[in-house]
Amino acid sequence: MLKEHNWHQLKDDTVQRLNLLAPYFRDGKIIDAKDTVAALEAVIRSADRVNIEGNNQKQADFLAECLCKVDPEKISGLHMVQSSVPLSTHLDLFEKGIAEKLDFAYAGPQDGRLAQLIQQGKIKLGAIHTYLELFSRYFVDLTPRVSLITAFEADKDGNLYTGFNTEDTPVIAEATHFRQGIVIAQVNKIVDKVPRVDIPGDWVNAVIEAPRPFYVEPLFTRDPALITDTHVLMAMMALKGIYAEYGVERINHGIGFFTSAIELLLPTYGEELGLKGKVCTHMVLNPHPTLIPAIESGWIQSVHCFGGELGMEKYVAERPDVFYIGQDGTLRSNRAFAQAAGHYALDMFIGGTLQIDKYGNSSTATASRVSGFGGAPNMGCDAKGRRHVTQSWLKCGEEFNATQQQLIGDMPRGKRLVVQMQETFREKRQPAFVDKLDAWKLAEKAGLALPPVMVYADDVTHVLTEEGIAHLHRCEGLEQRMAAIRAVAGYTDIGLAADPAQTQALREAGIVQTPEDLGIDRRRANRQMLAAKSIRDLVDWSGGLYNPPARFRNW
Amino acid sequence: MLKEHNWHQLKDDTVQRLNLLAPYFRDGKIIDAKDTVAALEAVIRSADRVNIEGNNQKQADFLAECLCKVDPEKISGLHMVQSSVPLSTHLDLFEKGIAEKLDFAYAGPQDGRLAQLIQQGKIKLGAIHTYLELFSRYFVDLTPRVSLITAFEADKDGNLYTGFNTEDTPVIAEATHFRQGIVIAQVNKIVDKVPRVDIPGDWVNAVIEAPRPFYVEPLFTRDPALITDTHVLMAMMALKGIYAEYGVERINHGIGFFTSAIELLLPTYGEELGLKGKVCTHMVLNPHPTLIPAIESGWIQSVHCFGGELGMEKYVAERPDVFYIGQDGTLRSNRAFAQAAGHYALDMFIGGTLQIDKYGNSSTATASRVSGFGGAPNMGCDAKGRRHVTQSWLKCGEEFNATQQQLIGDMPRGKRLVVQMQETFREKRQPAFVDKLDAWKLAEKAGLALPPVMVYADDVTHVLTEEGIAHLHRCEGLEQRMAAIRAVAGYTDIGLAADPAQTQALREAGIVQTPEDLGIDRRRANRQMLAAKSIRDLVDWSGGLYNPPARFRNW
Repeated sequence: MLKEHNWHQLKDDTVQRLNLLAPYFRDGKIIDAKDTVAALEAVIRSADRVNIEGNNQKQADFLAECLCKVDPEKISGLHMVQSSVPLSTHLDLFEKGIAEKLDFAYAGPQDGRLAQLIQQGKIKLGAIHTYLELFSRYFVDLTPRVSLITAFEADKDGNLYTGFNTEDTPVIAEATHFRQGIVIAQVNKIVDKVPRVDIPGDWVNAVIEAPRPFYVEPLFTRDPALITDTHVLMAMMALKGIYAEYGVERINHGIGFFTSAIELLLPTYGEELGLKGKVCTHMVLNPHPTLIPAIESGWIQSVHCFGGELGMEKYVAERPDVFYIGQDGTLRSNRAFAQAAGHYALDMFIGGTLQIDKYGNSSTATASRVSGFGGAPNMGCDAKGRRHVTQSWLKCGEEFNATQQQLIGDMPRGKRLVVQMQETFREKRQPAFVDKLDAWKLAEKAGLALPPVMVYADDVTHVLTEEGIAHLHRCEGLEQRMAAIRAVAGYTDIGLAADPAQTQALREAGIVQTPEDLGIDRRRANRQMLAAKSIRDLVDWSGGLYNPPARFRNW
Repeated sequence: MLKEHNWHQLKDDTVQRLNLLAPYFRDGKIIDAKDTVAALEAVIRSADRVNIEGNNQKQADFLAECLCKVDPEKISGLHMVQSSVPLSTHLDLFEKGIAEKLDFAYAGPQDGRLAQLIQQGKIKLGAIHTYLELFSRYFVDLTPRVSLITAFEADKDGNLYTGFNTEDTPVIAEATHFRQGIVIAQVNKIVDKVPRVDIPGDWVNAVIEAPRPFYVEPLFTRDPALITDTHVLMAMMALKGIYAEYGVERINHGIGFFTSAIELLLPTYGEELGLKGKVCTHMVLNPHPTLIPAIESGWIQSVHCFGGELGMEKYVAERPDVFYIGQDGTLRSNRAFAQAAGHYALDMFIGGTLQIDKYGNSSTATASRVSGFGGAPNMGCDAKGRRHVTQSWLKCGEEFNATQQQLIGDMPRGKRLVVQMQETFREKRQPAFVDKLDAWKLAEKAGLALPPVMVYADDVTHVLTEEGIAHLHRCEGLEQRMAAIRAVAGYTDIGLAADPAQTQALREAGIVQTPEDLGIDRRRANRQMLAAKSIRDLVDWSGGLYNPPARFRNW
């Protein structure tokens, strides 16, 4: 027994740190921007676990910059635990020796430099996670000691208004604060009263008005002008061969042109197929601008968002029957709950990838870039804890029967639809189908225990290329599944190994479907099918409510 | 295009309802308890989706009672979407015709009556979920229109203090409020200022001081006096054969005596095995009283809780280095985040069940009781979206290789440990191992699309009985797995069908291990091993901080 043990060491330490912070408070919990570096030096200790908020969208960029300016003689060896490292400052911390270890989910534009730093031994990599998985560890073995978060507005009591971009803030603040951690927020503005309380002031130790608004990236904006006829063909196949075939109501669309094309075909080809109200009624999705025509046409009943998307603020605010909106009239996004919903409440994940191996494992990793996972593996896997039944889930499970029998005997079970879309060749004539994923090389170079796979072969149900759809879950075993992949792999080495007689048999069995098998007229597969052909068209569809970032405006 | 469409119908309707509620506000958002029924009649409409907060622990029982008193002529056909239906009032709603359809996760003591009402057609069953799955649907297709929640205290602005029993409140309030829904809270006390803000007042439309404190059930209290020598033997096998074998650090223990016995062996047998600091360091768990000796002995670094446990308030508050504690000094539990952590951040789920079939599928369902799932399937499944590596996860995946090769080719992957503990015969000499689960009969009688399985055969890695451990994931296929199950199924019909030669071969292959194979001396497997043998011992271990409910006090 440890009767004499001090059971409040964390709290004592926190009190001590907050005492050092006290001189910097100007009014209530407000600290001047100019005192930020000193404030961080007051509350952070070497080897602390520290979180800098930032996902693929909003960034606590001012606090990240200030953390880079602390004295490495005072603070070093930090263990960074954070969703994302897309800013150069995130990696500068490691170059300077302020930080040493990293647990994260997504790298974005820093993926190449991250790989280098890992190989140089400057970053000790914990693990690459999906968002929800990393959030989960915040409550178990990766709880931040200090979190540097961001919001639109704060009052002097620390109440935060995260508005349109709530995103990761609630889960970070909760995990940190209730484990005696310290939470510091940069905000765009200090106000007398916040328009709504997204994070209670109790949970926040200090607020700082940053010299400029937080950085936010319009990551989910796809210009319809860049959608090709091939994208349209593949989108038509998806709608007829999968959406209609399974009656899929609850969906997440990955980022990219394949699914943007699908969104823009709903009011045209989807309508023609009689699918309105029958498929794609509930979505978990960022507010993609290419969703606007489908929403305006009455296809979508609800959208719950991970985060915001620049330019969509006003449009979303004016569609409160569809989006989750606060009493202040703006979106409440929430990455943790949207990812949970993406895992458990959806019937299909559909999105692009980079490479697919001969078994059906797919990855976006390349040999020299540690890009991370974001949310895809969480949505793109068969959620084994799911117990509620929908028609599409049940049908997919019945079709998976041959494999399932070997796993669970005669017990019936449903299965999530997971669709990977990819043209057989990517940019620069890189084959999308490969014998071995580049992920293997990356694992070797970066010292990862496992190759970073985005979607595993037993989770993916469909591979869709310009050649056709392979219904992988209908296969009887690994050999047949590999043949089905070869059948849609076109002129890649994998595709060239296909046996025409076997491919024909798979087509007859309904395991492989070409556009012709689906009754799709290739001549109609062109951009004329799109409900909007440009960003300008999207603005028009929105009645002027969508306000695209400057870089997307060419008029 | 629907340019003339009204896109704020939900909000207009909410405003209208809140206008009807206005006359009942006494001061700020406070409504008198005597006006509760009238208030509910003002804001609820027939066929609404309504949530009454309550899981297996705290209950918004006063609001449930009041909802039973509304006039069925005014309000009928409600669709109840809620974690749990353990109170008679929850089902009275259906008898009275006020409610019609049910989506839920757990029934508890009402499981028999629930089955009857479903069979009588008085309840139209949506689906049985796990908690996190149901919460996920709150953001997609099962968002409540009105939620009746509960908290310890509120101020007149609606700020809620949920204190020790936060549990489901945040996720319900968020999903409801931001989809223009109405949130009404019963609280034990209206105060001028809440000790901490668990739910911002913005999100709450009305607060009512109930005539008595909310009901809460001490569901996770197990009296060590009822732990048998067989429980001790099985716990010793678990510790030596699984905890030590895999070095499992992050764990959830199911409810029940098997895992209570494990908790009470950590400071004795666990210490003897040299496991302190090496296994069971991080837990996601309610504050089980039987954890006290392990915590006091310095085994447990952190515990994140789904909810509270009656009597543990003071003990937990005095151990802030271990539990998640607010600045008011009491626990912050959170079922949604704890379930996410249980899914993604743990290496093992271990718990009891009722029936296991010949393939390894297990269920707690019986033919006449719709008990529901609670959180077990979410924690007791292989979380396929997981990407971070731990030693135990990797080792388990390597051992699963024979089956995995057929699913994903030569791609390596880890696997979660899922252990089902059960004696070969349950109470009343019911065999725990059966040819076909009773879940099949229940599915037929209650009109379920699938038999309600708690843990599927491909998710369970270990079946542990008094006969031994079957390492099912080490098997080469279904046939071998069935033989391994037979080998530990004792004198049940399934066990009697075991072929002794095959069992011997499985033992030699390390797939089946008896206590002797593990080097466990059965003579030592008795209650003397327990760190605490009674509730009184637990109180002593806690230095008097644990305050067990009266029914557990026999001194």
